Amino acid sequence: MNTLYVIKIGGNIIDDETRLSSFLRSFASIEGKKILVHGGGKLAAKLAAALGIEQQMVDGRRVTDTETLRMVTMVYAGDINKNIVAQLQANGCNAIGLSGADGNLIRAHKRIHPTIDYGFVGDIDSVNAGLLHNLLDNNLTVVAAPITHDGKGRLLNTNADTIAQEMAKALSNLYQVQLIYSFEKNGVLLDVNDEHSVIPEINAAYYQELKRKQLIFAGMLPKLDNAFAALQNGVNKVIIGKAEQLDQLIAGKAGTTIKYE
Amino acid sequence: MNTLYVIKIGGNIIDDETRLSSFLRSFASIEGKKILVHGGGKLAAKLAAALGIEQQMVDGRRVTDTETLRMVTMVYAGDINKNIVAQLQANGCNAIGLSGADGNLIRAHKRIHPTIDYGFVGDIDSVNAGLLHNLLDNNLTVVAAPITHDGKGRLLNTNADTIAQEMAKALSNLYQVQLIYSFEKNGVLLDVNDEHSVIPEINAAYYQELKRKQLIFAGMLPKLDNAFAALQNGVNKVIIGKAEQLDQLIAGKAGTTIKYE
Repeated sequence: MNTLYVIKIGGNIIDDETRLSSFLRSFASIEGKKILVHGGGKLAAKLAAALGIEQQMVDGRRVTDTETLRMVTMVYAGDINKNIVAQLQANGCNAIGLSGADGNLIRAHKRIHPTIDYGFVGDIDSVNAGLLHNLLDNNLTVVAAPITHDGKGRLLNTNADTIAQEMAKALSNLYQVQLIYSFEKNGVLLDVNDEHSVIPEINAAYYQELKRKQLIFAGMLPKLDNAFAALQNGVNKVIIGKAEQLDQLIAGKAGTTIKYE
Repeated sequence: MNTLYVIKIGGNIIDDETRLSSFLRSFASIEGKKILVHGGGKLAAKLAAALGIEQQMVDGRRVTDTETLRMVTMVYAGDINKNIVAQLQANGCNAIGLSGADGNLIRAHKRIHPTIDYGFVGDIDSVNAGLLHNLLDNNLTVVAAPITHDGKGRLLNTNADTIAQEMAKALSNLYQVQLIYSFEKNGVLLDVNDEHSVIPEINAAYYQELKRKQLIFAGMLPKLDNAFAALQNGVNKVIIGKAEQLDQLIAGKAGTTIKYE
């Protein structure tokens, strides 16, 4: 099976033009099949603030109301997605930018919660692996914005980490999938205050031990739980590390590699 | 050869939610291969005004500066494009929304003019017919936003009528192309004040006569010149008429049909 890289790029990089350009140059130079999933950064919130749209909060959680949904659709699927695609094209990478509505790529439903109404937040039902396979087969590189749809005409705001994970899982029958979460940190750290304390490799047994000894920064736990869920669903390898070190992450020379065994 | 409908939907319909929904239902029900090209309407200008971005004018012409380009990218390729796609999906039409940067669909260059700098306005160099053919072959319906790219990382603002025309021409070797300009008028009118004075059919000889007798409303001349240019470049038929009458336009029962002979 061919290797496929599913790479998530975090919000902090999106907000920084120079770092984003540098990341996109590295991404474009990766040989073989690849997918980029991007987060949103702070641009949508900035735009909403400039327009005087108030951030709705319920029980301390952000709510995606109609106006916010419109902002994130404009910023994520419009501004960010198309500028990334144009830059990748300039770097010789034949990118195609899609939201979850395009080609019915990602079907989701409005989040159901017993007490909190998150508004137009979508939890994923299915990923259209056939479409992705066809596009990848035609040497296109999909750039996915964190917007999904419910099949009834409604767009939904969906977490980009989750999109990357669901795409990786959906394609694991067709490719040897490496799922890469690239962000501003060097990887999973033993000491959250020491960027040099990167754990190079974590397997399931070691993860249990780290959790038992409470050696993992709480904010990292959902990412790691997701990583193991992906591995249990056919993904070959998960790598977490710094966006600026993309080449080394892929070569296994930087970041944290997570494998089941 | 299969028939392909390339349908442009004008700005006035885009701005009207009810009329847009009704148009999209008709569009979704068209049998066979089809492409939708949408204009921008007034949403981008409204957003710019709300953000206090001043409209740049040079010699009475609108200029697309950096901020305006950002607004149109957000509104056209984000908000409008993705909402149209989601609605078409809900109507059982497997739509995929693209800008000209996606898959290198439409390559353009910044407009060159001896005296006026139009800013980031793009004149089209090429349309990627291979990509369109592949997507159509996979029963996808392309929804094109009026944004192109220059291959050097720059997005550009491009007229949607021109995009529809260039796509129609580029695909005329592969399909029997019918190019449909749908907007708020009933068709080409003999009397601009009488919506019932639609000319049902115009060929090249009759067009010359109408022009000589100055019977055509000046605002319609560029559309008609474009129509004949398309016909001379392999497009089978051009139809101009009311968006609400899409079915009848296609059936030749409404609007103005333009053929070379």
